[in-house]
Amino acid sequence: MTATKVTLKDVAARAGVSYQTVSKVLNGEMQVAPETMERIQAAVQELGYRPNRIARNMRAGRSFMIGYSWTQTEPGQVNHILDQFLSSMVREAGAVNYFVLPFPFSEDRSQIDIYRDLIRSGNVDGFVLSSINYNDPRVQFLLKQKFPFVAFGRSNPDWDFAWVDIDGTAGTRQAVEYLIGRGHRRIAILAWPEDSRVGNDRLQGYLEAMQTAQLPIETGYILRGEGTFEVGRAMTLHLLDLSPERRPTAIMTLNDTMAIGAMAAARERGLTIGTDLAIIGFDDAPMVQYLFPPLSSVRQPIAEAGRKCIELLVAIVEGREPEQKHILLQPSLIIRASS
Amino acid sequence: MTATKVTLKDVAARAGVSYQTVSKVLNGEMQVAPETMERIQAAVQELGYRPNRIARNMRAGRSFMIGYSWTQTEPGQVNHILDQFLSSMVREAGAVNYFVLPFPFSEDRSQIDIYRDLIRSGNVDGFVLSSINYNDPRVQFLLKQKFPFVAFGRSNPDWDFAWVDIDGTAGTRQAVEYLIGRGHRRIAILAWPEDSRVGNDRLQGYLEAMQTAQLPIETGYILRGEGTFEVGRAMTLHLLDLSPERRPTAIMTLNDTMAIGAMAAARERGLTIGTDLAIIGFDDAPMVQYLFPPLSSVRQPIAEAGRKCIELLVAIVEGREPEQKHILLQPSLIIRASS
Repeated sequence: MTATKVTLKDVAARAGVSYQTVSKVLNGEMQVAPETMERIQAAVQELGYRPNRIARNMRAGRSFMIGYSWTQTEPGQVNHILDQFLSSMVREAGAVNYFVLPFPFSEDRSQIDIYRDLIRSGNVDGFVLSSINYNDPRVQFLLKQKFPFVAFGRSNPDWDFAWVDIDGTAGTRQAVEYLIGRGHRRIAILAWPEDSRVGNDRLQGYLEAMQTAQLPIETGYILRGEGTFEVGRAMTLHLLDLSPERRPTAIMTLNDTMAIGAMAAARERGLTIGTDLAIIGFDDAPMVQYLFPPLSSVRQPIAEAGRKCIELLVAIVEGREPEQKHILLQPSLIIRASS
Repeated sequence: MTATKVTLKDVAARAGVSYQTVSKVLNGEMQVAPETMERIQAAVQELGYRPNRIARNMRAGRSFMIGYSWTQTEPGQVNHILDQFLSSMVREAGAVNYFVLPFPFSEDRSQIDIYRDLIRSGNVDGFVLSSINYNDPRVQFLLKQKFPFVAFGRSNPDWDFAWVDIDGTAGTRQAVEYLIGRGHRRIAILAWPEDSRVGNDRLQGYLEAMQTAQLPIETGYILRGEGTFEVGRAMTLHLLDLSPERRPTAIMTLNDTMAIGAMAAARERGLTIGTDLAIIGFDDAPMVQYLFPPLSSVRQPIAEAGRKCIELLVAIVEGREPEQKHILLQPSLIIRASS
């Protein structure tokens, strides 16, 4: 529509080199002397021959695109953490003249095939991965391909790759230490299934805080299940039905949705949240400050995680040695009336 | 890293054409006979010369990228509507082999400059715009450029462009009709400033429902302000401080955040929400079902809006006449205990 009429031939003429040279240089197939490169670059820019993309690719032989697989959320649900993360990456990438290219998870094809295609087609210079777990096949594949990537999250401890993560252990530890400091002794935790690496990291903080305070760790206070409202509610009803001397006075949960389920259960049993039962969530979702009572929660520095992932990946893509290949960010405890 | 060693020269040799022909065809500068095109295409594919991107661009002279400006949300806030919208577009675009390229709003440069750059650099084939308002400069610019775009939202009635929108008037009308049907007569609405096209559309539904029921429209019941928790709370406190015979029995709000502010105000005044005061929000944010009491709200078909935007834009980009250039989707009222 607004396609420029400038052709490769025009660029070649202006730069004083052959058509073939310009073509090869622009296709990243030929190295030329710096002054020739400069002349071509100047011609490209003066003539406005798709200036940004070509000029940049010419310098670098790159697409300036960062692939990011956006995990599909359940219908009606929003994963505000990953939305914030993507939004932060788009902003940070834009600031260093890269684009983030989100691509969907496909049910028809293996995820690995999509990564392979994106690499082979030259669409991306590197990837950021999220929702990492143990034995992650994407990490395995990209390590084998030696293709640049940064993971938001850790995987198997013996795999060597660049990652940015948030210290879930520290987050839960801080919250449980706070509860202990407020005099709570019977503290339960609503945790996730054992195959969740993130869940295990967070649970570890509970164990550490209890051990440090020399409080007994009772398996009856560690409940595991999916991180939903219904599971949080059912687990809490179960805990509240224990005999009075066994019933916990505080509940820590590994995400806010479970905490909201716990609040509903407490309300059903006629308890005043914050007084009869303390509840702390994890994630600090945008709306939990408006709950009644407002929910205490562990806030993750998501915007910073997005920024660090982009910084680290761009350094790797551009062949610069990153200062740190492993970046562990600290969450912070936000205290509100629920605890 | 995994860059293929196949060159243009190899492709030319395999296709039995000159280097220059292949180069020009791949750069979209030359038309060749269909059988030559087929040979080049076959050579590209057999040799694996960046197969996807080049083969597709060769056929179409396009980037298969759809630009989308992702409006920055306030720190700590999430715009779940736009997140859901982007997520839906990424999925739908992926299904027809396009990518969505989100780019950030930049404070340093005019938004228009970014659109111009993306067009000139050949990075995108078209745009989807959201957060449209009256006199939107992006709509003006893209119409003038004759560059393909679809707007999620309407602008000035006399501007002719493709859009997908959700019928905000119908959403509010449905909610207010429901309140009238429940016997409410003194119904207030927490609306937005007059320069918001979306806000005016939604307010219109209130006016229509009241008029149809032959209820008086009192300016004291129409409050305007930013759609925040604090504004919703303050407006509701003001309404609840009216004399008992003037005090509204129901409040409609133009978004959920204002409704949550209204709930907080009602609680402060010792009112039971749903009994003493009915409240209905707009957006059906993922967490409002977990509020106490759960909030009634108008749900927007966001995933469908994303799908329709992609369908419409791809039709325009590919030169097919779309069946409909204006698509108005219907929201639905979700009734919960707050009303």
